[in-house]
Amino acid sequence: MDSDYGIARELTDLQKLRSTYQPQLPPCLQGTTVRVEFGDATTAADPSGAHTIGRLFPHTYGQPIVHFLRETAQIPDARIITEHPAMRVGLVFCGRQSPGGHNVIWGLHNALKIHNPNSVLLGFLGGSEGLFAQKTLEITDDILTTYKNQGGYDLLGRTKDQIRTTEQVNASLAACNALKLDGLVIIGGVTSNTDAAQLAETFAEAKCSTKVVGVPVTLNGDLKNQFVETNVGFDTICKVNSQLISNVCTDALSAEKYYYFIRLMGRKASHVALECTLQSHPNMVILGEEVAASKLTLFDLTTQICDAVQARAEEDKYHGVILLPEGLIETIPEVYALLQEIHGWLRDGVSADKISSKLSPWASALFEFLPSFIRKQFLLFPESDDSAQLSQIETEKLLAHLVEEEMNKRMKEGTYKGKKFNSICHFFGYQARGSLPSKFDCDYAYVLGHVCYHILAAGLNGYMASLTNLKNPENKWRCGAAPITAMMTVKRYGRGAGASSIGKPALHPATVDLKGKAYELLQQNAVKFLMDDVYRNPGPLQFDGPGSNAKPVTLCVEDQDYMGRIKKLQEYLDKVRTIVKPGCSQDVLKAALSAMASVTDVLSVMSSSSFNGQTPF
Amino acid sequence: MDSDYGIARELTDLQKLRSTYQPQLPPCLQGTTVRVEFGDATTAADPSGAHTIGRLFPHTYGQPIVHFLRETAQIPDARIITEHPAMRVGLVFCGRQSPGGHNVIWGLHNALKIHNPNSVLLGFLGGSEGLFAQKTLEITDDILTTYKNQGGYDLLGRTKDQIRTTEQVNASLAACNALKLDGLVIIGGVTSNTDAAQLAETFAEAKCSTKVVGVPVTLNGDLKNQFVETNVGFDTICKVNSQLISNVCTDALSAEKYYYFIRLMGRKASHVALECTLQSHPNMVILGEEVAASKLTLFDLTTQICDAVQARAEEDKYHGVILLPEGLIETIPEVYALLQEIHGWLRDGVSADKISSKLSPWASALFEFLPSFIRKQFLLFPESDDSAQLSQIETEKLLAHLVEEEMNKRMKEGTYKGKKFNSICHFFGYQARGSLPSKFDCDYAYVLGHVCYHILAAGLNGYMASLTNLKNPENKWRCGAAPITAMMTVKRYGRGAGASSIGKPALHPATVDLKGKAYELLQQNAVKFLMDDVYRNPGPLQFDGPGSNAKPVTLCVEDQDYMGRIKKLQEYLDKVRTIVKPGCSQDVLKAALSAMASVTDVLSVMSSSSFNGQTPF
Repeated sequence: MDSDYGIARELTDLQKLRSTYQPQLPPCLQGTTVRVEFGDATTAADPSGAHTIGRLFPHTYGQPIVHFLRETAQIPDARIITEHPAMRVGLVFCGRQSPGGHNVIWGLHNALKIHNPNSVLLGFLGGSEGLFAQKTLEITDDILTTYKNQGGYDLLGRTKDQIRTTEQVNASLAACNALKLDGLVIIGGVTSNTDAAQLAETFAEAKCSTKVVGVPVTLNGDLKNQFVETNVGFDTICKVNSQLISNVCTDALSAEKYYYFIRLMGRKASHVALECTLQSHPNMVILGEEVAASKLTLFDLTTQICDAVQARAEEDKYHGVILLPEGLIETIPEVYALLQEIHGWLRDGVSADKISSKLSPWASALFEFLPSFIRKQFLLFPESDDSAQLSQIETEKLLAHLVEEEMNKRMKEGTYKGKKFNSICHFFGYQARGSLPSKFDCDYAYVLGHVCYHILAAGLNGYMASLTNLKNPENKWRCGAAPITAMMTVKRYGRGAGASSIGKPALHPATVDLKGKAYELLQQNAVKFLMDDVYRNPGPLQFDGPGSNAKPVTLCVEDQDYMGRIKKLQEYLDKVRTIVKPGCSQDVLKAALSAMASVTDVLSVMSSSSFNGQTPF
Repeated sequence: MDSDYGIARELTDLQKLRSTYQPQLPPCLQGTTVRVEFGDATTAADPSGAHTIGRLFPHTYGQPIVHFLRETAQIPDARIITEHPAMRVGLVFCGRQSPGGHNVIWGLHNALKIHNPNSVLLGFLGGSEGLFAQKTLEITDDILTTYKNQGGYDLLGRTKDQIRTTEQVNASLAACNALKLDGLVIIGGVTSNTDAAQLAETFAEAKCSTKVVGVPVTLNGDLKNQFVETNVGFDTICKVNSQLISNVCTDALSAEKYYYFIRLMGRKASHVALECTLQSHPNMVILGEEVAASKLTLFDLTTQICDAVQARAEEDKYHGVILLPEGLIETIPEVYALLQEIHGWLRDGVSADKISSKLSPWASALFEFLPSFIRKQFLLFPESDDSAQLSQIETEKLLAHLVEEEMNKRMKEGTYKGKKFNSICHFFGYQARGSLPSKFDCDYAYVLGHVCYHILAAGLNGYMASLTNLKNPENKWRCGAAPITAMMTVKRYGRGAGASSIGKPALHPATVDLKGKAYELLQQNAVKFLMDDVYRNPGPLQFDGPGSNAKPVTLCVEDQDYMGRIKKLQEYLDKVRTIVKPGCSQDVLKAALSAMASVTDVLSVMSSSSFNGQTPF
């Protein structure tokens, strides 16, 4: 079947039109000469892990941040790369497909060929398995024709997506050596980029000349940090889901008799749920991060929803739309503890039907309390990262069931006097993932592909392609790269088998920041959303006209541009140096010393690990 | 809450753009003068029921077919309506919301005001309940502003949707009299239009001056007959579902490890499943009509899917997409019999947990064979039309479960040597229903609204608005009306409590015609779809550019235009009369007599009820 890969296929008219769309490059990447500015050496965001990371990544930790600038940029010590020898680059899709992935290939291929027509881009077939087995497809303009701006990962396919065991790492090393690759580009999310960092370090140690580059592509939107504002695919997923959610809202408002419970994808973090809420204004959303922070129990959640249903009934409203992320179930403390017990027994080889008798008394009590369909889903074998099989657990049905029971109880007791509560449940999982990518995802992925080239041309290893200032138009985007090690943290505690990752530096999924502006926006509107049915209908994903240039709300309200600020700080430091040159007055020097002493004191305290009470995961 | 209806609301940019879209009228409806041509008296499609229908509908059966023509049309005996006294018209949404419903209101309102600014359109609030309670909202241009070309039924809302009991009919009569309505427009599907016909007859009998008009609006697409080519909402639903199905196809092709089982809406008929298959080319579709015609058992279906899975595995393909209509479950003979037994006991008041012990031995054997989640869903109380709660029965999970068991068995026995079978199930039910309507649905609904006006202006009662030749551009659409009684059939046999409708004339859902061109197209492509993964991705619903003017494939391949042909036949008859005028030669007269005798002989035989072995339902 490998022979099917890369075959030209018949496109519909809309797909054809999309395949002719040409994303624009930011000014710094236009032309054939790019200036590379090496910034300061990077550190880990959480200083407490810095030592561990440095020890385990001696070759790739502490490398400088990198900015790509226009040839004419007024930065004296930037390096201009004018020679572009032919390069051989490999590329692999890791993990779950995300709309826009194909455009990274296109962007990289385009950049390679512009700078040297003899360069070669090899796509590994069938994901990491193809890498290990050295199965490749040479990317050409012809092959790309029907995959430009198209969804899915079907040009190359993908598999299990792990490059972690010694065997896998060695197979990758062997493949890169055998194929004489100058670069290996890994397209994926949090775990794939952790693997990329590890591979980069191993390659450097083994004096392998292949440089490894990571690209942030995951629909979960949870690969977020100072250097990465959003991920390829997140925008499309949220737009398609918001289309469906707002359809359901219109439906609810027409029939006026159902509560819709909708579970959304997103794994451990609730970014998709938050973004979709801000786009479509359903009545309620329950974020996993809120539940975890407030340690809400299943009973608390049920009560909270029932109170909302009751409040609406008092205004004669018997319909509503409630969103929840698939990861919610694991954030409920007592449920998480129960799942940990179950997973422990499962890993010990106890068969699913024997587990209920092995549970501790309280876990057993909770287990027996749950409806049978959920019990069955809880007994599924956990995933490799030790989380439950989130896509298989119908949390939306569990909550709908508990709310219905509670509303019936209140009705019987006479504390609720409204109509009978009716619910309909949905899981919006796989129906958005293969979508045609939005304009933003097409652009973002394409430019990231170009940035990958420049990272390799600059000879950098263990870096992730980074674009910031994304909420502004493309010509304002900042292009750069940061060592993946600078995004790592070290988990110091944990339960269950996930403990295997404890003490090891890794990228961790960023959760929704409950102090951030996006969450604040949700908070400000929560009551209005709940009571006033101000449903918002962005409509189906468009590629032209109103809405087609929209970007994620959560991206636009956040005050990001970390890379821009890092540059600004450098400018301030340079300015101080210029003002306080040897020969300046004693007074100026004294003032500078006093001011800088105060600044460094404050920053030292703020950066100490004791101040960082909260670890960033 | 009533005060919420009709309130202006905030639209997104895309919604705003859509709200400015102006559908075009066919030439015959432009201007203020319309010519009404009364055609021949209508008969029932199934002659065997004609007598019963005639007896029960003495005032409204046998009325002529009506064509609306341009003022300048060369039809001598057509009536030109030039006087347009002010009219009071009521309008009610009946049954499940369907995208485009709002545009019927807009079209009707526009036509009323063009012909007489003093005319009044009253919308009943909350569906038929609003009609009984005389709760109305006067439709104005202002109110319509934010509802033009928008989805849902939320301008007026809707409820249970029945106008059938004596009490309900009397309440409707009282409402129409009290509000002095000249017309009552009922927007809905098969059952609502049956109710409309009954109401028209009752009103005529009671000498009530309100004329009743029906409009074919149902996303199921099953209100199909000689006069009705498609229904408002069907196009949108199929486009949105095809978008999602093709996303899932792309997903399947990227991961290459799952079979997706997708259940689609559509009640008893499989029109949605057929149309979506022709739009998105999944690997397989199982139409309820095929299963019923071939009397396939659950075991047959399982074997058929397993054989397909095995054939694909032999080509190293372990993914696929399989569609099925929600009505499938009732078309499987032994399952239908089991459901009938269960429903019988339920209606007798036996509680669900006691039923399994009451079943006949063979029904009990089947029941016990089924997985527990399906057993529970089978025990749900049947709907008012005696069908099971189709949206609640997860047939896709049942089939996936049975296929998995069978594949595991084959694996153990060594007859299947491929990888383990994995499935993911989806129900695409409510997420399309509230969608922004497609351009076609906007146009179709708007023009139907205009036709409603002309039906009322011509003083017709018990008619349905009819547009034919729809596959051609709007300026070729034929506008007309047909008595609803001409679309009725009489069921002569049946099982279970559905028997209540036996012997009563009614509209019945049209099923997919297994001799039709659309099904033929599917048959021709079935093997290619199954084996070659020729997935087609129409993309998200667009309102401009490629694909935005697409119409349902099933509409375009069928050779419809019944109304056009009826007119053509009339022309031939007129021509014969012109040629064979008194005074023509003996030879010409003899030839004419002989030819016409032969024609009438053939047609008499073809129209006899014994020839019509198959009843049209």
